[in-house]
Amino acid sequence: MANDRIETALSEVLDRITKKPSPPKMSAALRHAVLDGGARVRPKLCLAVAYACGDQHESRLAAAAAASIELIHCASLVHDDLPCFDDADLRRGKPSVHAAYGEPLAVLSGDALIVAAFETLARCSAGNPIRANSLIVDLALATGAPNGICAGQGWESEADIDLAAYHRSKTGALFVAATRMGARAMGEDPDPWTTLGAKIGEAFQVADDLRDALLDSEQLGKPAGQDAVHDRPNAVAHLGVDGAVKLLDSILEGALEAIPPCDGDKALRAIVRQQAERLVPVGVARTVA
Amino acid sequence: MANDRIETALSEVLDRITKKPSPPKMSAALRHAVLDGGARVRPKLCLAVAYACGDQHESRLAAAAAASIELIHCASLVHDDLPCFDDADLRRGKPSVHAAYGEPLAVLSGDALIVAAFETLARCSAGNPIRANSLIVDLALATGAPNGICAGQGWESEADIDLAAYHRSKTGALFVAATRMGARAMGEDPDPWTTLGAKIGEAFQVADDLRDALLDSEQLGKPAGQDAVHDRPNAVAHLGVDGAVKLLDSILEGALEAIPPCDGDKALRAIVRQQAERLVPVGVARTVA
Repeated sequence: MANDRIETALSEVLDRITKKPSPPKMSAALRHAVLDGGARVRPKLCLAVAYACGDQHESRLAAAAAASIELIHCASLVHDDLPCFDDADLRRGKPSVHAAYGEPLAVLSGDALIVAAFETLARCSAGNPIRANSLIVDLALATGAPNGICAGQGWESEADIDLAAYHRSKTGALFVAATRMGARAMGEDPDPWTTLGAKIGEAFQVADDLRDALLDSEQLGKPAGQDAVHDRPNAVAHLGVDGAVKLLDSILEGALEAIPPCDGDKALRAIVRQQAERLVPVGVARTVA
Repeated sequence: MANDRIETALSEVLDRITKKPSPPKMSAALRHAVLDGGARVRPKLCLAVAYACGDQHESRLAAAAAASIELIHCASLVHDDLPCFDDADLRRGKPSVHAAYGEPLAVLSGDALIVAAFETLARCSAGNPIRANSLIVDLALATGAPNGICAGQGWESEADIDLAAYHRSKTGALFVAATRMGARAMGEDPDPWTTLGAKIGEAFQVADDLRDALLDSEQLGKPAGQDAVHDRPNAVAHLGVDGAVKLLDSILEGALEAIPPCDGDKALRAIVRQQAERLVPVGVARTVA
């Protein structure tokens, strides 16, 4: 259900931004960057929070919020795969955008997806213009500078990395946006939802470290062992596999505890557990039931 | 007056996006990309239209609209200068962002400036949330796909260029945004203002072609002769200098005629003439008084 809403919302955006007179190759690159692939972890979290806050699978603003977050995530993958960053030829099990369409269209497609994310929210403002504006600010805070995902990636150009700021911005910011915007779209105060997003972001980072260290490129759908190659901080290198798994489980417990009291908290708890399971490589011993 | 408002609005944005915990080099790159340099042609046009529509130099939304357009323009310059596009080391008489701070921070700074542009409009929505949302859609249309400046640049990756779409998107879109958003910010219907922006965009493109063909790098503050180097369409190559000047003057006449009747149309006419004069290399014979 959530999946259908996300794909429908994303398809509508892609139809809008690839119609004439868009240059044909750029249209293809935009579709390549967003459709067919991607676990949609962030938009699912956003809709799960909206559902917990009373969305009956019908809020256009919640669907727009979810889609806008995924568009920013896709844009960040396209730009992060560029030769000047990860130089990755593989993404989501297919060629990265720059590998398939060249570097110029990879830069431009990423730019256009960022634009499309904000446009999507502004276009869903009917009836709730104030809420739409607040969602745009939420998304901007998670995306740009001083502490969105762009700033997070920017830490990799510093000699002295502020590790806490790096992780909080690079991975955490969009998860925080997911929970906050899911609540905000339903007219709820987003502040009590910040910790849940931050904890899930932390968990996701550790799970990603485990996957990067333990899986091969085919299993990952992207180049493996990249943290070691790029000398990036990785929890497995720091704590070992067992230590990283213990850390992951303790963060997840914290995430579950951070869910604010609401009508849908049980369902949300189940979704968080289920998504968390999907993140961890099969065969890794776990302590959280 | 307009100049002060633009610089103040841009400084406020830069202060916001470079505060802690922004990575220091990225903050420096963001300031480098926006401040100290730039003729601010687009935001001045936006404020001139707002003034013609009744702004008494006090509309926060008009200043935000002007600043947001300049932020998008600055982002486009940072990305267009990247090695995979123009590979330009010089911009606005100083090193381009990638030359000064490296390619990763150039990509990220451009991204963050796009985000900041939309955030700036959303943050000025108090009292006028519907108008702010419409301005965000206007800016998105001018920036992304299918026919904003990203799509315009995307035409350079096509074997068969749709030249009209290319120029309309690559150069015209932000000028159309400038006139439309200036009117919209003041609560006026933006549609009658579209032609003025489009004509000024066309004039600017021809003037830019003249400057690229006739001036050297020091006079331009960026590499000269780039259209020939990159085999891009250039009016001077196509029509000769005299032909290009005649074309420019006839477009400018059309622009002046396209100014909708309004209280401030005389002042606006003077501003358009004055800005147009600044665009054309000194010593080129003109027919428009």
